[in-house]
Amino acid sequence: MGRNAIVGQSGGPTSVINSSLAGVLQACQMRGAEHVYGMLHGVEGLLSEKIVDLSSRLGSALEIELLKRTPSSYLGSCRYKLPDFAEDPAVYEKLFGILDKLDIGYFFYIGGNDSMDTICKLSDYARLTGSSIKFMGVPKTIDNDLMLTDHTPGYGSAAKYIGVVMKEIIRDATVYGNNYVTIVEIMGRNAGWLTAAAALARGEDCEGVNMICLPEVPFNVERFIDKVERMQRESPSVVIAVSEGVKLEDGRYVCELSDDAHFVDAFGHKSLTGTARYLSNQVAKKLKTKTRSVELSTLQRCAGHVSSRTDITEAYQVGGAAAKAAFEGYTGMMVGLKRISNDPYQSTTELHDIHKVANLEKKVPMEWVNAYHTDMTAEFLSYARPLIQAELTPIFIEGLPRHIYFK
Amino acid sequence: MGRNAIVGQSGGPTSVINSSLAGVLQACQMRGAEHVYGMLHGVEGLLSEKIVDLSSRLGSALEIELLKRTPSSYLGSCRYKLPDFAEDPAVYEKLFGILDKLDIGYFFYIGGNDSMDTICKLSDYARLTGSSIKFMGVPKTIDNDLMLTDHTPGYGSAAKYIGVVMKEIIRDATVYGNNYVTIVEIMGRNAGWLTAAAALARGEDCEGVNMICLPEVPFNVERFIDKVERMQRESPSVVIAVSEGVKLEDGRYVCELSDDAHFVDAFGHKSLTGTARYLSNQVAKKLKTKTRSVELSTLQRCAGHVSSRTDITEAYQVGGAAAKAAFEGYTGMMVGLKRISNDPYQSTTELHDIHKVANLEKKVPMEWVNAYHTDMTAEFLSYARPLIQAELTPIFIEGLPRHIYFK
Repeated sequence: MGRNAIVGQSGGPTSVINSSLAGVLQACQMRGAEHVYGMLHGVEGLLSEKIVDLSSRLGSALEIELLKRTPSSYLGSCRYKLPDFAEDPAVYEKLFGILDKLDIGYFFYIGGNDSMDTICKLSDYARLTGSSIKFMGVPKTIDNDLMLTDHTPGYGSAAKYIGVVMKEIIRDATVYGNNYVTIVEIMGRNAGWLTAAAALARGEDCEGVNMICLPEVPFNVERFIDKVERMQRESPSVVIAVSEGVKLEDGRYVCELSDDAHFVDAFGHKSLTGTARYLSNQVAKKLKTKTRSVELSTLQRCAGHVSSRTDITEAYQVGGAAAKAAFEGYTGMMVGLKRISNDPYQSTTELHDIHKVANLEKKVPMEWVNAYHTDMTAEFLSYARPLIQAELTPIFIEGLPRHIYFK
Repeated sequence: MGRNAIVGQSGGPTSVINSSLAGVLQACQMRGAEHVYGMLHGVEGLLSEKIVDLSSRLGSALEIELLKRTPSSYLGSCRYKLPDFAEDPAVYEKLFGILDKLDIGYFFYIGGNDSMDTICKLSDYARLTGSSIKFMGVPKTIDNDLMLTDHTPGYGSAAKYIGVVMKEIIRDATVYGNNYVTIVEIMGRNAGWLTAAAALARGEDCEGVNMICLPEVPFNVERFIDKVERMQRESPSVVIAVSEGVKLEDGRYVCELSDDAHFVDAFGHKSLTGTARYLSNQVAKKLKTKTRSVELSTLQRCAGHVSSRTDITEAYQVGGAAAKAAFEGYTGMMVGLKRISNDPYQSTTELHDIHKVANLEKKVPMEWVNAYHTDMTAEFLSYARPLIQAELTPIFIEGLPRHIYFK
């Protein structure tokens, strides 16, 4: 049985993925791991032995506090998909060779769907070959689309950011008092959890957004413009939250309708940006009205300066729970969050078989969308509001939040 | 002599324009104004007598604190340009008729260049016609392009926001460790003050941006791509801050090079967005590299949740100083900020003849740009850093900053 632990981060950055790293690190140290290694740029980096001893780099309590407040992945990330064992056993042999050389007993991977697929494959391989290494998945994604867990660490902070900036954009948009249409594009290719968070803006101090368009609801451009026209009659300023992933009934993405020549990038990848730009141009043309499109872009996943303390705390907890489970002998599991109550909000962690999580996607239930497909119901608000509660104040040095980064 | 005061807000929103409103309101009340009126949507609203009694609406200390923390213009704004007196005397007669009916003695206008032009014309007209109303300009613009004042209220908070998010974008962009180019588009049509603020991100906890492109420096697309190529050899991830207003040597805006069909809006207005998108597409094509463009868009002028306390305080002070000056008999003036020292930072207010301010533009001095035209010098950092210091924490209610708005 290996005496050391190793941890990696994978997939898109979030504001709290480093808090999970802190949770894994400190729990492994408390449980007696001799070394806690970090893989740089995930499994891809591990395969070329890009490894660092975390215990020596993140030794002080202040460094841990800075880590919790630093967005994006301290260890770097990758988008590497592990091949199937049958296809390419050599990759597995190499990887386990490296782990054995480092005397690894516990392996943690913090990430979303693809990362859980990696844990699934590695733990299956370990079982097949009799390796005693324990493999644990630590959930992380702003998209909130992982199965079985009530929500994913990273979602609460992104949802809070969206609530904060939608309130500010609404204040900004109403200023001229004329019929101005603002369309805000929010991340989420297939699941509308983040776009739905725009509903949090409404309150006694804010009119809220006028319309929310999720990828779960088939999109019709004409119907959309009709709705905007009706809203303009009632509201001096119309603000709309639209998912980057809204699709027509025939399955094409709305942004594919754009004649923007730059839609396909240099690598031939379809880029989903441009939905709000396309729609605001259509609205301007058809309704002869002034429009503005805003893309929240990377800011929604890295705005560490306005994180949810609930989210940061839970991210730390799932990291710690993963370490606890691995040291107790579990493997091939993902730590999930289970909601115990809404008011007061309480949650706990539980373990799920990784096979039941990997490669699946959780969407927003249609019962949480109103009948007109323009807004979220009270059920959604009860679900989401606890996740954005409380703040973890940045440590401001000379006017800017202090971070920690790997040099 | 009229016993009442009236105040309006004009031009683009900022995070701190409401703090100046609070400053005018409270100073007028302390100096004995019977009523302090607000014009809704500036002079345009005043002309249709859209007026509100502020004393009755913003009565409590908590309301004043919320006002200071609410971005955008509480009273609404306009983009109305007052015609010359010779062209259209009827407008002036109507406007002064309304002011006399309200028994106005003191008139305050919070805004940028165009608003100072309004104060200039109104105070000239008052002098010509023997009106005793005192007209005072209160500076406000994130663009920092007003003459004579050391800086403008609104700039410090926008600069702080840019510093904060550039640090976060840099953390996000470095995560995959490959040659990724991120181009961030920042507001400022002719003056590069806001784009220059991206230089604040660099520090012991941040690599900083790789290049800063101001509108003051003629732009050459090929030279730009050459610089990116060189930077890619030294840095795993290249992050560039570019002004929306960068222009070619022949005076055309870079964004005009885009073949984006949507460049002209429904009203035929040239829109300056698309600079970063155009450049990132060019870089992707020429250097066969992955790129991303980010537009900070409206967020940079309305991100009240991360304002500079220095800025909010100064915005309040210039409002108060304007009221003091008007009640002491001054008219046709703008309150400016004068820097007394940098370390510790100290500033005071002073009065400037409005004729020396209106319709002029202050640009970034070329001595503050480095020889390669890629970065700002230490002089700029010494100028800008004091302006982003300290925070005014939002009042968070249920996870979101509480605002106050005109219903």
